[in-house]
Amino acid sequence: MRLGTVRVDGIRSAAVEREGIWYALGVPTGTPLETVLAGGAEQTLRLAASASERLAGAAPVAPLRPGKIVAIGLNYLDHIREAGMDKPERPLMFAKFPSSVIGPGEPIVIDGELTERVDWEVELAAVIGAPLRRASPAEALSGVAGYTVANDVSARDLQFADGQWTRGKSLDTFCPLGPVVVTPDELGDPQSLRLRTVVNGETVQDSSTKEMLFGVAELLSYCSRAFTLEPGDVVLTGTPWGCGEFMDPRRSLRPGDVVEVTVEGIGTLRNPVVGL
Amino acid sequence: MRLGTVRVDGIRSAAVEREGIWYALGVPTGTPLETVLAGGAEQTLRLAASASERLAGAAPVAPLRPGKIVAIGLNYLDHIREAGMDKPERPLMFAKFPSSVIGPGEPIVIDGELTERVDWEVELAAVIGAPLRRASPAEALSGVAGYTVANDVSARDLQFADGQWTRGKSLDTFCPLGPVVVTPDELGDPQSLRLRTVVNGETVQDSSTKEMLFGVAELLSYCSRAFTLEPGDVVLTGTPWGCGEFMDPRRSLRPGDVVEVTVEGIGTLRNPVVGL
Repeated sequence: MRLGTVRVDGIRSAAVEREGIWYALGVPTGTPLETVLAGGAEQTLRLAASASERLAGAAPVAPLRPGKIVAIGLNYLDHIREAGMDKPERPLMFAKFPSSVIGPGEPIVIDGELTERVDWEVELAAVIGAPLRRASPAEALSGVAGYTVANDVSARDLQFADGQWTRGKSLDTFCPLGPVVVTPDELGDPQSLRLRTVVNGETVQDSSTKEMLFGVAELLSYCSRAFTLEPGDVVLTGTPWGCGEFMDPRRSLRPGDVVEVTVEGIGTLRNPVVGL
Repeated sequence: MRLGTVRVDGIRSAAVEREGIWYALGVPTGTPLETVLAGGAEQTLRLAASASERLAGAAPVAPLRPGKIVAIGLNYLDHIREAGMDKPERPLMFAKFPSSVIGPGEPIVIDGELTERVDWEVELAAVIGAPLRRASPAEALSGVAGYTVANDVSARDLQFADGQWTRGKSLDTFCPLGPVVVTPDELGDPQSLRLRTVVNGETVQDSSTKEMLFGVAELLSYCSRAFTLEPGDVVLTGTPWGCGEFMDPRRSLRPGDVVEVTVEGIGTLRNPVVGL
């Protein structure tokens, strides 16, 4: 199943996509996707299977507003080499505030008074559907409702000057999510997916989730040892080689650019960049 | 006004406290306080003024579930001296996940396999009632619905080993909040409040919000330059001198301890400490 949130006549509702067409789920108009996911995989499957009302004029927006966004740094072997960093002994966790989330097509807004070094990061994002607390890696994937694509947009100057990454990672519009949430049964093995970033038509990141140092199951288990992963939470699993910050010469996003991040089997999230 | 959330017959609802007695607001049972606050100060005042139904058996719980928790480090001059750190040139921002919130009387749970150095931090917490985006310091306080007390419980070993503070600050139960949210008109100047921590009857922190390096208005303005502060968000404004980590010998919380954090004009938040 390919689930998401669409806007019809100004109202955002959970919906299901089949072959590029959006269908209403049998839930009240305005029901958020996170509410549907929290109802469990079986109910979601039943709702999606019986969905037949085609939504004319539906535009996909951010699939959900996460309760929290847990992000993982330095989790791809090729990215660790590129950044010249040591391999972390355990996952390096940080936070993005949920107020940074935007959806497909919405602009990434750069405040030129705050930052001059805005970078892209394509990531596979796990959407939590059932609470996970002290879950083993073997148990952890049972809490995943599906996967989506994230662009972990990063103001490198703020990130490195602050030391704590929260601000540079949480500017408004710095967490594009979408275009859909694909259920685990449909996506298959999350550790063998190609992921790419294309800026103005040029490929800048191109790797595979095989390169992850800690896989999705391990990451979720690790997080759940510290705190409860709740339905509607989103875990960003790190980015591969190809960030602009580590290129020679360094590259940053500028107003007028268009960034596309793609994860195989999920889709492409395309966002224009504008100035404030 | 002193607002909060109480549990009656297992249901949590916004309520107002007068002289130690809780009264129902004229809202449906189960309405969260953040919903009331988002309705604006005028409406909240009207609801509170007409509240007369006494809630028998009401027990205060965490006043709200924040959308995000923005926390500020090293913001008290006496704490900066104690930690032997340099004075930050701008606020040092980090995140606590909302899943860490507990209320008055609920236990702080220490997972001894994860951490051995759990510390207290009394803080004045600002609760956002109206969106703030690119607000000047002069405008920022208009977005505050009220103030509450927070204990920014911190696993020092995780905080310092990780480098990024998110995990060590976000363990489940590591953000006691409450007991009430006091509106700005009732609290008066937020920069002249005594705040204290008492562990097992012994005072360990005792300072004043006068010692803040960046005041509440400046902090909120600074945050709002980076991202939107939304109704229901909570901003923790830093802790003064007296953390256990910097004592000689170092002190940490242990199962069996009782921690009380107090901010003048708001109240005392008391939490027992237990092992997992």
